[in-house]
Amino acid sequence: VAKRLEKFKTTIFTQMSMLAIKHGAINLGQGFPNFDGPEFVKEAAIEAIKAGKNQYARGYGVPDLNSAVAARFKKDTGLVVDSEKEVTITSGCTEAIAATMLGLINPDDEVIVFAPFYDSYEATLSMVGAKIKSITLRPPDFSVPIDELKAAFSKNTRAVLMNTPHNPTGKMFTREELEVISSLAIENDALVFSDEVYDKLAFEADHISIASLPNMYERTVTLNSLGKTFSLTGWKIGWAIAPPHLTWGVRQAHSYLTFATSTPMQSAAAAALQAPESYYEELRRDYKAKKEILVEGLKSVGFVVYPSSGTYFVVVDHTPFGLENDVAFCEYLIKEVGVVAIPTSVFYLNPEDGKNLVRFTFCKDEETLRTAVERMKQKL
Amino acid sequence: VAKRLEKFKTTIFTQMSMLAIKHGAINLGQGFPNFDGPEFVKEAAIEAIKAGKNQYARGYGVPDLNSAVAARFKKDTGLVVDSEKEVTITSGCTEAIAATMLGLINPDDEVIVFAPFYDSYEATLSMVGAKIKSITLRPPDFSVPIDELKAAFSKNTRAVLMNTPHNPTGKMFTREELEVISSLAIENDALVFSDEVYDKLAFEADHISIASLPNMYERTVTLNSLGKTFSLTGWKIGWAIAPPHLTWGVRQAHSYLTFATSTPMQSAAAAALQAPESYYEELRRDYKAKKEILVEGLKSVGFVVYPSSGTYFVVVDHTPFGLENDVAFCEYLIKEVGVVAIPTSVFYLNPEDGKNLVRFTFCKDEETLRTAVERMKQKL
Ligand SMILES: CSCCC(=O)C(=O)O
Ligand SMILES: CSCCC(=O)C(=O)O
Repeated sequence: VAKRLEKFKTTIFTQMSMLAIKHGAINLGQGFPNFDGPEFVKEAAIEAIKAGKNQYARGYGVPDLNSAVAARFKKDTGLVVDSEKEVTITSGCTEAIAATMLGLINPDDEVIVFAPFYDSYEATLSMVGAKIKSITLRPPDFSVPIDELKAAFSKNTRAVLMNTPHNPTGKMFTREELEVISSLAIENDALVFSDEVYDKLAFEADHISIASLPNMYERTVTLNSLGKTFSLTGWKIGWAIAPPHLTWGVRQAHSYLTFATSTPMQSAAAAALQAPESYYEELRRDYKAKKEILVEGLKSVGFVVYPSSGTYFVVVDHTPFGLENDVAFCEYLIKEVGVVAIPTSVFYLNPEDGKNLVRFTFCKDEETLRTAVERMKQKL
Repeated sequence: VAKRLEKFKTTIFTQMSMLAIKHGAINLGQGFPNFDGPEFVKEAAIEAIKAGKNQYARGYGVPDLNSAVAARFKKDTGLVVDSEKEVTITSGCTEAIAATMLGLINPDDEVIVFAPFYDSYEATLSMVGAKIKSITLRPPDFSVPIDELKAAFSKNTRAVLMNTPHNPTGKMFTREELEVISSLAIENDALVFSDEVYDKLAFEADHISIASLPNMYERTVTLNSLGKTFSLTGWKIGWAIAPPHLTWGVRQAHSYLTFATSTPMQSAAAAALQAPESYYEELRRDYKAKKEILVEGLKSVGFVVYPSSGTYFVVVDHTPFGLENDVAFCEYLIKEVGVVAIPTSVFYLNPEDGKNLVRFTFCKDEETLRTAVERMKQKL
């Protein structure tokens, strides 16, 4: 294995999903729904396949999808972007992240990230040979430690990589926090990469794209995807929205990472993005009910549950149950209780920082959530 | 844009396909069929979508597809591989190539390639920071210059990256050439990465996988895909087959480049690989007829046509028509004749080496091939 990837293990999501199968445990680990996506989107994929939309897509995206992404971004942020020059369709947001790093970051550039972070952030920065400066968001509210953030900037800072609503904590960056990040980015002439795949799963306040703050669009790459919002995580359609000079770098990397993304799935994604506002409202209503079941359940089991205002995740402190760390707790939970959660220590540069925290997802049907809570009540 | 990608332009395939649309020209450039894939494969994708196979696949592949890939490899090469430990499913062979480079090559490693080469080879090696040693295959027969190859090895040689049947020339590496490469690889303890996406399009002799030569499997990554063989280039399903210690590196990179590949498309790919031998025989018969139409046509137009024994491409010398180089010729061909071909100079480290050669594809229906030839006869 190449040195740049030596320190990484099999992704925690894969590890835990395989253990779930092996032990017949209820999987509240990896974030995929156990219910299906909307019929009209599946129907659109089937129509595309039947209609023979089965050859290479244009590298940067099927025109209808590029347009649909630009249209939704306008509705969400008020920003008008050129779908031909500022939108790139990728094989999931994970590829959009990789293409952004490989396309825009040079070796020895410094990139600021907020821990806990989605594991591909660290791995792709390592592929690139960048230096990571990690700012830890701490419970109970996971707010941004402004002074630490300021201190992390240097003349080598090339970018800030952020994620709101935030996986795994469910934290949403406040307008004030976004303003601080944006003024520091402008002051230090840094880029901002903003992973917003959970933007439609914001329960307490409206999601804010940092690209919409004054003078920010020109230095921001906004990353998003279809899977979470349309309960089709296996379709692997993502995108990057950025001004032309940044899109150029993203597209160059994308061209040589995957060249293009599945054509019929892109057609269906274009249809999905025509969904009326009511689709998203219903989605949030459903998830809010699920969230309440899980959060109330976890509290009744005896966890310290930290408030989650977005995403379909919630983070808890497991220490009331006396296990040595997050990994030991999750092992016990799988083997003795029959429930899978995700240990968070892999999401920090310093694993110690995550040793008290584990993540549960509520993207499962209510019956499954209730059964999982029941098991924990009985066996923890 | 990051320095590693500065020298690259929009891929030539995208450039030429966009010009084809703009000028209403017949596209014999990018290698995608203008006919559809088999009904039974499309039907399998539709069934998978309907059956709700729409959430994240296992990162390294849907079990059925891993098994089907291993089974076909056994049939083709006699090699028995563990589908769980030695097969990785990727988003097209392009991603398999990127994952192999990023997963197994370190900065400053040397990698030997044969020019002309598929453009992603150079770009992904550049992402990695590897040194490229390019051996040029020259017309008329594009055979491997053994002495040059020997001289290219050094103590820093980490891998040889090859492609048979070879895009763009249609050359197939002979058993003797494969033996030379294999003994040099073993002697120098180098890996071999073998891109074999056109393995089923071998017209004159059977395709040979270099992995099947004595003592080679343990140092070989064999790369392949669904798209060319099943006329579904837009589905983007590829794979890498390698012993566990090399698979580990490929999977690590794949995990953070795309994480997983479209679930319903993978299910359909597993069904496709159940095709009986007669499917492949018929495919070859069809393509042989198409090839004859194009090759005879190009000869009658006045090109020097180099023999192609595999792939769906053929390379010609355009100099009888008096244009200054391959790019100028292709421009003239699009604008004045209404036919798109691919200039080959982008497939060499030194573009001069390709200035006499352009590539045509015959993966189009016979009517289209005939019309293209007619246009060239009248206007060249
Ligand atoms: C590819 S799994 C990662 C994203 C996600 O769904 C998770 O965090 O569980
Ligand atoms: C992604 S296009 C590259 C492969 C191919 O089909 C070609 O060489 O034309």
